[in-house]
Amino acid sequence: MRDPSRPVVVKLGGSVITDKEREFSVRRGVLRRLARELRGVEGMVLIHGGGSFGHPLARRYGLTQGLRGPKQLRGFAEVRRAMERLNLCVLEELGREGIPAVPVPPSACCVLEGGRIKRMELEPLRRMMELGLLPVLYGDAVVDLKQGVNILSGDRLAVHLALQLGAQRVVLGVDVDGVFTGDPKRDPRAELLRVITPEEWKRRKPSFSSTGWDVTEGMEGKVRELLGLAERGIEAQIVNASKRGVLGRALRGDRSLGTLIRG
Amino acid sequence: MRDPSRPVVVKLGGSVITDKEREFSVRRGVLRRLARELRGVEGMVLIHGGGSFGHPLARRYGLTQGLRGPKQLRGFAEVRRAMERLNLCVLEELGREGIPAVPVPPSACCVLEGGRIKRMELEPLRRMMELGLLPVLYGDAVVDLKQGVNILSGDRLAVHLALQLGAQRVVLGVDVDGVFTGDPKRDPRAELLRVITPEEWKRRKPSFSSTGWDVTEGMEGKVRELLGLAERGIEAQIVNASKRGVLGRALRGDRSLGTLIRG
Repeated sequence: MRDPSRPVVVKLGGSVITDKEREFSVRRGVLRRLARELRGVEGMVLIHGGGSFGHPLARRYGLTQGLRGPKQLRGFAEVRRAMERLNLCVLEELGREGIPAVPVPPSACCVLEGGRIKRMELEPLRRMMELGLLPVLYGDAVVDLKQGVNILSGDRLAVHLALQLGAQRVVLGVDVDGVFTGDPKRDPRAELLRVITPEEWKRRKPSFSSTGWDVTEGMEGKVRELLGLAERGIEAQIVNASKRGVLGRALRGDRSLGTLIRG
Repeated sequence: MRDPSRPVVVKLGGSVITDKEREFSVRRGVLRRLARELRGVEGMVLIHGGGSFGHPLARRYGLTQGLRGPKQLRGFAEVRRAMERLNLCVLEELGREGIPAVPVPPSACCVLEGGRIKRMELEPLRRMMELGLLPVLYGDAVVDLKQGVNILSGDRLAVHLALQLGAQRVVLGVDVDGVFTGDPKRDPRAELLRVITPEEWKRRKPSFSSTGWDVTEGMEGKVRELLGLAERGIEAQIVNASKRGVLGRALRGDRSLGTLIRG
């Protein structure tokens, strides 16, 4: 039995649900499949990334580099609109599967300070979960007390929610099989790491680094944030949500998939 | 000079921006015109109603009548999706005019108790205003601590925000010329009331009632809520936003239009 007071935080990577090569291109078929895999999972909070809806705009307007003028305010608004459009696609596919998914945009309930979450109102989200609604959040343009505006990544949000909600675990769906010793898309010798612990990371980090521990800066960032969770007793699993059935199996308890990050 | 710390709360009625006779029909041309009328107005919070996107669904699922089963949860999710779609149309037209409009869904930052706002996080909204972003809120399906789920009307939201933000005034854009002594769409003898004060309301209410004070229950509800504001020194103006230029003139200070509700 799943403890409803200890939710599972699930994140769908932006590169899984959108085509990162083409701006504003959502993978409807993948979303539909993932909605089916999520159906029936209880006590969940869902987060998705921005993919080709959020990232190109955020970069174009320099939204992580501090507010310099009105052009960035229009950029902030544009990112928000793009993210709402992507989020609507996610909600529609979840709705089609009968999942009562409700959007909770971080920008409406959260302020950052230097990129870190300074304050986030979670009462509506907690109540939604109690009622059996599925809160859906996403990486977003958010107000920053230090630099005016900023981007809150879905990964950082996942870690924050896991800590604040006392999650039992975090499952990250990405477009590779887990964390590798190199880039699996380029290096055939890259090996999948089944388990990463904070101790191992501290001990072996230099050698991992030299062989290219992470697929992308993104993957290294993910691992770093998730190790902080592991130290607090919250396990994370990084699995390939681009492969049919993998996310669903991970959510139903298969811990042999992908990479486990644990204390 | 407008005092930026005392914003104007502007509400666009659902019957102005949608066709209430046809579900999910947005009035794009009206929205485009209203966006032009709003351009250049500073220190503003914008709210819009649900019109034919929110009301029919909210009724169909009985969302104001307390949570009885999972069907209503799906209804809650459906209302949220519909409202996001309408809100996106509003944001797009504002964006087209260069207004950096940012959605702030009440359901993400607010909980009700028996229909009244019990708690609402306003920090992100305040910060957005300080930066020069235009927060856009709307009537919405919101969690209710007493009855599970409920509907928060845009009018109630306008009153709450006006009080919490210490607004200088509230402007409600509706589809009639103001508050009449009868229904102006049916009764040719109905007279427009230029000014309503709490004293006059208390004194003359019975006779108003007998001649049909309000156009709809909605209009009477609006006046009742706005009189509470008037008693706290915040003036409200109800104007016909369906007529070209009227909302814009009211926002630029023309107090001769429509009905003033003041202490």
